[in-house]
Amino acid sequence: MDELDRVMHYLAKLPGLGPRSARRAVLHLLRKRETLMRPLADALGQAAEAVTECSVCGNLDASDPCHICRDDKRDGAVICVVEDVGDVWALERAGAFSGRYHVLGGLLSALDGVGPEDLNIESLIARAGSPEVTEIILAMDATVDGQTTAHYISDRLAGTGVSITRLARGVPVGGELDYLDDGTLTQALKARREV
Amino acid sequence: MDELDRVMHYLAKLPGLGPRSARRAVLHLLRKRETLMRPLADALGQAAEAVTECSVCGNLDASDPCHICRDDKRDGAVICVVEDVGDVWALERAGAFSGRYHVLGGLLSALDGVGPEDLNIESLIARAGSPEVTEIILAMDATVDGQTTAHYISDRLAGTGVSITRLARGVPVGGELDYLDDGTLTQALKARREV
Ligand SMILES: [Zn+2]
Ligand SMILES: [Zn+2]
Repeated sequence: MDELDRVMHYLAKLPGLGPRSARRAVLHLLRKRETLMRPLADALGQAAEAVTECSVCGNLDASDPCHICRDDKRDGAVICVVEDVGDVWALERAGAFSGRYHVLGGLLSALDGVGPEDLNIESLIARAGSPEVTEIILAMDATVDGQTTAHYISDRLAGTGVSITRLARGVPVGGELDYLDDGTLTQALKARREV
Repeated sequence: MDELDRVMHYLAKLPGLGPRSARRAVLHLLRKRETLMRPLADALGQAAEAVTECSVCGNLDASDPCHICRDDKRDGAVICVVEDVGDVWALERAGAFSGRYHVLGGLLSALDGVGPEDLNIESLIARAGSPEVTEIILAMDATVDGQTTAHYISDRLAGTGVSITRLARGVPVGGELDYLDDGTLTQALKARREV
């Protein structure tokens, strides 16, 4: 059936699901049409409708500004710069950071042709100019692109008087932030040092 | 965000996806909102809307009667009785059967309190009474419940003059039909024998 073939086609594109597991997932959904298939369809549709990019920090959320930017209890003096919304989630799960975020939406990459204009970098420079901001944490992955991006931003912020830090070398070389356990993230954040 | 939490909650219920992989799936969907999240939502919604149980054979399809029951080229003399729509898919993939199906919608189970009235058994007995039908293949799993169900149906059909067969013992003991490779299924079907 066309409808199920399409569901299978899209499910097979999710990380961790291949064609075979997508087929089993569709069978499972078919068996639970009212309690799983329809609710998942509705939740996905509503999420796709609701999610928007925060005009302040670039985070993805159901409101703009996002719930983190709107939270008065968070420390506006420290901005943690990350590649992706997944990194925000990872740091929030670790519960080790109470400042604000800035989501770049990617990393500089000569290979993939990603330049500064493709990322949320100008808005970061603008935020860094606010008198409230005293520290910018560059929390990019410890990969070549991650460190290239960190250097670029660090150069752009030179002379602003804002303290620029990076995560401590608890982050394993070549490791992606998103995959780290909470303890490593917490340690790396606590032991962060001036660039 | 509530919307994403709900997507994660439902995705985590799919076979092969746990809470962690559901989170990664949601991130992936977020990054591909227009090309994956929305199309998957639409496909799921349309499938949930379209899918209906075939009033002839119990198969799940977008039309009633289902596309197999409507196919004139299929042999109406032979009915293959299976537990579930997943078994229909497995047999169709193997391409070894050109008759019709009857989907029970489950197996008899004393433990789970599933009795004959909970399954599509009366409609099978009625179909078996048609002069067109000459053979009923009982293609249930080689499990206790599968064989109990096969015996029950075989008893009910005794004296109708219809030939009752089961899949050859190529099906491994305790094995679920749905997991078998096409070759095993094809062999088991070819070597089927009278009960
Ligand atoms: Zn924000
Ligand atoms: Zn049918």
